[in-house]
Amino acid sequence: MTEFELIQTYFQRGAHGPSVVVGNGDDAAVVSPTPGHQTVISVDSVVAGRHVPTLCPPEGFASRLLGRGLSDLAAMAATPRYVLLSLTLPSFDAGWVDQFAEKFHHLAVQWGVDLIGGDTTRGPLSGQVTVIGEVPEGQAVTRKGARPGDRLWLLGQDLGGARAYLEVLSGSVAEHVIWAERYWRPEPLLDLGQALRGQTHAMIDVSDGLCQDVGHLLQGAAQPLHVEIDLDSLPLADGLIARFGRERALEMALTGGDDYVLLAAAPPDRSFDAGHCIGRFEASETPRISLDGQPVPADWSLGWDHSR
Amino acid sequence: MTEFELIQTYFQRGAHGPSVVVGNGDDAAVVSPTPGHQTVISVDSVVAGRHVPTLCPPEGFASRLLGRGLSDLAAMAATPRYVLLSLTLPSFDAGWVDQFAEKFHHLAVQWGVDLIGGDTTRGPLSGQVTVIGEVPEGQAVTRKGARPGDRLWLLGQDLGGARAYLEVLSGSVAEHVIWAERYWRPEPLLDLGQALRGQTHAMIDVSDGLCQDVGHLLQGAAQPLHVEIDLDSLPLADGLIARFGRERALEMALTGGDDYVLLAAAPPDRSFDAGHCIGRFEASETPRISLDGQPVPADWSLGWDHSR
Repeated sequence: MTEFELIQTYFQRGAHGPSVVVGNGDDAAVVSPTPGHQTVISVDSVVAGRHVPTLCPPEGFASRLLGRGLSDLAAMAATPRYVLLSLTLPSFDAGWVDQFAEKFHHLAVQWGVDLIGGDTTRGPLSGQVTVIGEVPEGQAVTRKGARPGDRLWLLGQDLGGARAYLEVLSGSVAEHVIWAERYWRPEPLLDLGQALRGQTHAMIDVSDGLCQDVGHLLQGAAQPLHVEIDLDSLPLADGLIARFGRERALEMALTGGDDYVLLAAAPPDRSFDAGHCIGRFEASETPRISLDGQPVPADWSLGWDHSR
Repeated sequence: MTEFELIQTYFQRGAHGPSVVVGNGDDAAVVSPTPGHQTVISVDSVVAGRHVPTLCPPEGFASRLLGRGLSDLAAMAATPRYVLLSLTLPSFDAGWVDQFAEKFHHLAVQWGVDLIGGDTTRGPLSGQVTVIGEVPEGQAVTRKGARPGDRLWLLGQDLGGARAYLEVLSGSVAEHVIWAERYWRPEPLLDLGQALRGQTHAMIDVSDGLCQDVGHLLQGAAQPLHVEIDLDSLPLADGLIARFGRERALEMALTGGDDYVLLAAAPPDRSFDAGHCIGRFEASETPRISLDGQPVPADWSLGWDHSR
């Protein structure tokens, strides 16, 4: 099967939405922007042996690839519109590609993105998605803008599950179904992100690890801020404390990453049913984070650095 | 150096244009579409060992990656605006990354694209660019639309040079400076592509090989067409016939790929200074190509298939 046949067989399905002028199969795709909206764009890679195990199941590869990508749009409060897929395959295994494509298309429909382009090539397994969304003019929520007095909200499910699943993969603990869910099926909080337009000063998704991503909010603030995190308020993944003990469970929740919940800095008069208020921002001499009044341990790896 | 430091050091330079609302460094980039325009998007991969030698010089990697990507926008008659870069590096070699980034930024400025996002990770060397351009509403030129009576135009430089350079790499012939240029520094024909808005019925860039890309124009046509190519009209790369003889030189020109010239189907009353009229389209029972009246040899690999 050639690249063209592979794309035609697996990646050109169904009709495009009315805003797609030229879809998959030309030199480039052409889309009509919605008047009064801005375009929001992100790219995200999943490399086997780095972000997922080398022997990666096709459905998990599809879910993590598209879920991680769309989580970036959720964190900007954008409405997802389109996706382009670049796929590098070590060999052409029809069963693998078929299952990958089936899952990818299913999730694209579920999450409201139209597959408008991409390419395939041969090489070590990796995938890249370019995700494209829209926001009404001026309503994107960036990482910049946290202010003294803001509350730190965590919105979505719980923390540490994906990190715990890595322990399962390494064979050091037994399987726990929730952890596998968190790792293999990250759920981008698209509706939630859009509902937060105009409600928060700053937002980011937890991909690198809670502490590291709070650090990005601090870097984006106009003045140095101190964030005090209340550890008892953190929603931990099911079974985390029972299996690892409280101290290690908290470390996994604070540094593990891959949680794809949303972190937002919101004015103190706001409250969110879908979330937990886990801390507060105050003016500071230098940007810093504390955990129940203590500084972050110096030996903690602050999140998952994909370049290491 | 972490992923964040690497991105900050090498890939966040200079100011963005006025249409960039949020640039590099947030969860996603935000841009303002130009009123009355459509958005044109393509992704393109360069995988070491597949599209370039495994030991690839950083400047060549940057040039081929961005040049190939932007050639797709040229072929749609789009004005380039933005690029996002996904880079997978086997190790962090500061000298390599520095030279890559220097070249990439230089070409981005030269070709008029603003680097608004991307990611880096560790793994076998590969790069992906997402290129984004704009066209006035309805003026994109697609692969579809060739008609009986149209002339086939080849616009830009010459054919076969990049293919000849692969022979240099394999050690079977001596270096020829023009071939290395063609291979390592593909020049996307951006101004030419835009000048062809409203002038042609269909357009494509020659990336897979002339015959194969003419085949894409045939696939896109509303009715079966026969293309007769006049071999004497083909502009061959300097030194090609002298080194390989006419027959092999023509095969390289017709099947080699990576030439990044533009192929257009234009009405017979049009003429283009920057091009060569190399053939004509006529109605046919089935889509087919002939070369000086002969069918394309059955044993020719029709272009470079990156999935094989």
